[in-house]
Amino acid sequence: MRATLIYGAGDIRVENVPDPRIQDPTDAVVRVVRSCVCGSDLWPYGSRPATEEGERIGHEFLGVVEETGPEVTGPKAGDLVVAPFAYADNTCRFCAEGLHTSCPRGGYWGQNGVDGGQGEAVRSPWAQGTLVKLPVGEDSDLLPSLLTLSDVFCTGHHCAVTAGVDARTTVTVIGDGAVGLSAVLAARRLGAERILLMGRHEARTALGRDFGATDVIPERGDEGIARVRELTGGEGTHAVLECVGTKPALTTALAVVRDGGVVSRVGVPQYEEGPAGYEMFSRNVTLTGGVAPARAYIEELLPDVLDGTIEPGRVFDRTVDLDGVPGGYRAMADREALKVLIAP
Amino acid sequence: MRATLIYGAGDIRVENVPDPRIQDPTDAVVRVVRSCVCGSDLWPYGSRPATEEGERIGHEFLGVVEETGPEVTGPKAGDLVVAPFAYADNTCRFCAEGLHTSCPRGGYWGQNGVDGGQGEAVRSPWAQGTLVKLPVGEDSDLLPSLLTLSDVFCTGHHCAVTAGVDARTTVTVIGDGAVGLSAVLAARRLGAERILLMGRHEARTALGRDFGATDVIPERGDEGIARVRELTGGEGTHAVLECVGTKPALTTALAVVRDGGVVSRVGVPQYEEGPAGYEMFSRNVTLTGGVAPARAYIEELLPDVLDGTIEPGRVFDRTVDLDGVPGGYRAMADREALKVLIAP
Repeated sequence: MRATLIYGAGDIRVENVPDPRIQDPTDAVVRVVRSCVCGSDLWPYGSRPATEEGERIGHEFLGVVEETGPEVTGPKAGDLVVAPFAYADNTCRFCAEGLHTSCPRGGYWGQNGVDGGQGEAVRSPWAQGTLVKLPVGEDSDLLPSLLTLSDVFCTGHHCAVTAGVDARTTVTVIGDGAVGLSAVLAARRLGAERILLMGRHEARTALGRDFGATDVIPERGDEGIARVRELTGGEGTHAVLECVGTKPALTTALAVVRDGGVVSRVGVPQYEEGPAGYEMFSRNVTLTGGVAPARAYIEELLPDVLDGTIEPGRVFDRTVDLDGVPGGYRAMADREALKVLIAP
Repeated sequence: MRATLIYGAGDIRVENVPDPRIQDPTDAVVRVVRSCVCGSDLWPYGSRPATEEGERIGHEFLGVVEETGPEVTGPKAGDLVVAPFAYADNTCRFCAEGLHTSCPRGGYWGQNGVDGGQGEAVRSPWAQGTLVKLPVGEDSDLLPSLLTLSDVFCTGHHCAVTAGVDARTTVTVIGDGAVGLSAVLAARRLGAERILLMGRHEARTALGRDFGATDVIPERGDEGIARVRELTGGEGTHAVLECVGTKPALTTALAVVRDGGVVSRVGVPQYEEGPAGYEMFSRNVTLTGGVAPARAYIEELLPDVLDGTIEPGRVFDRTVDLDGVPGGYRAMADREALKVLIAP
C-alpha cells in the first residue's frame, strides 16, 4: 500500500510500504477513508533533522475495519470507525479515569512500528479499546466533522474542559489555527458567553466568530495583552486556552489570565521551561492541559456532531489525495491552508 | 511602641516606632497578643541587601482590638481577633470568590506604611473585612493553634484544596517545615488516607506522622523520587503539595506526581522559570497553588481548632518575647526551631 513518510524538515514523501496485517490478537486492520494533517505535524516538518530512513506520519484518521484479531469482539469488519490520535486498551486504571494518553499499553500512531494515519491503511493495536464505531456510511457528508473527533476538536475540547470553562467563565483563546478555532467552538459548546480570540488571519478569525468568538484581537505581544485587559475591565479572563505551543504564546496566556484563573495549553510545547515565578504565584494562576485523551471524549461529543449542533469539520479548507499530501503540508506550513483533509 | 524591623540579611532589630492610630475610617488598632516568625520571613533574612532604613516585618498575629474607625461596625474594641496575612475589604468580587489576596484594596502587613505583625500593636486597614473575631479569651490555651489561621495552617490548607485532595487522592508533601506539616494535617483533615512526607528532620517528620503522614521519605533528589515511585507502584501520587519554594523542590514535585495529577505550591517561589516542557505536557500534569487567601478559610477551619479536632499550633516549638525575636529568626534559620511564637 501507499503511505506518507517524513524524511526531514520539508521532506514529505508518499511511498509504497508493506500492507498492514494482524500481528497481535487485539489488532484490527483499518482501511483509511479520511485522514488529515495536524498542526503538530508541522513541528517536525519545520525542523526535523534529515534521515536516510523515513518515518511514518499522521495520527488522525477514520476508516472501515477490514479484519480483526481473535480477541477483538467489536468493532467488526465493515464498521466505519474513528481512531483517537493515541491508541489505548481502554481497560486500565488510567483509561478508566479518562486519561487514555497515559495508558501503559497505549502509544501514538506512526511510532514504534505502528502505522501512521496518512496512508491507505493502518494496523490498530488494542482495536477494541481504541476504535469507536460511527453510525454513518463512508459516503456521509459528516466525515470531516467526525474526523475531528480523532484529534483537533477533542483537543480543543480538552483545553476548554481542563480550563474549567462553563457559562460563568470568560475565555481567551490564543491561536487561530485549527486547534484554536476548535477550542472556541468547544468553549461555546460548554456555555461560555464571552470568548476572546487572539489571531490575525482574517479568514480564520471569521470562522472563529462563526464558532462563537465574541471578540477578535489581532494584536500580539504587549499590545495584544493590553487589548485583552482593556476588553475585560483590566482583569483578564478566567480561562485562557493556549493553542499554539510556543513560549511567547504561553507568556501571553499567563499575562491575560485573571487572578485565580486557569491557563490550559494543548499545543505541543516548543520549550522546556516556562514562567513560574512570583507573578504567577501571587495571582494564584493555574497551568494545566496537556496532550488530549481524545478517546475519553468521543462518545460524549459524537451526538452533537451527528445532529449538526456543531460542525467542527469546517476547519478543513482543502482536500487532497495521497499524492497531494506533500503539497498539503506546504500549504499548511505557509498558512495558505488552515487544515488539509486527505481522501486517500 | 516596640516592633521588629529588618535591615538586611541576618539583621533583625526590635526598635521603638510610632504608636499606630486610626488613619482611615475603615481602620482598627489591634494590640498584638501573639505573633510569630514565618518560613517566608527567612527568605529576606537570608538574602536581603542591607539598607539604612529598616522595614517592618511580620505578617501573622492575633490580638485585642483597641480602637476602631467610624466605618467599622465590627469587630469592636475588646474583641480578640485573628488577622489573615493579607488584609482585604472582603466585599469586592475577588474577595467574594475567596481570593482575598487579589483584593484591589488589599495588601500585606509591613508594606506601604502598614504595620508589621511582629510588634506590640498594628493598625489594620479594612478592619471589618480583615479581622475575624475569636470566641475565646486572650488567656486561652488555644492561642497557638488559632494563630496558625493567620497563615501557616491556612496555607497548608490552600495547598491541599487547590491540589484537589480528598479521600480518593494519594498525596506527597514536600518539605518538613511548618507549612509542610500543616499541609499534611490539612490533607488528612480533607480525608487523604495515604500521605507521603518528604523530609529528613526527625523531630519534624515525627510531628508529621502525628499529623497524618503515613510514610516518611528522608531521601532527596533522584533517590527521593525513586522512593516515592517505589511506594506508589511506580505511578507517583495524585496530589503533590510543594511547601518549600525552591526550584529543586518544584522539580521533585513534578517528578513524583502521577500522570493527570496536580502539583500545588505554596512556598514563595525562589525562581523565575520552572519545568513546563513536553514531559509535564505529555503527562497532563497541572501546576497550581499560590499565595493563600487565608481570610477565605478562617471561618471554615475555626470550629475544628476550637473543638480540638486539629491542633495546628503544635508547629510552634519555641516561644520568645519581643527581645527574643532576633534569636528566634536565628534559631529558625539554623533549623533549631521549627516555628517561633512571639508573645510581645
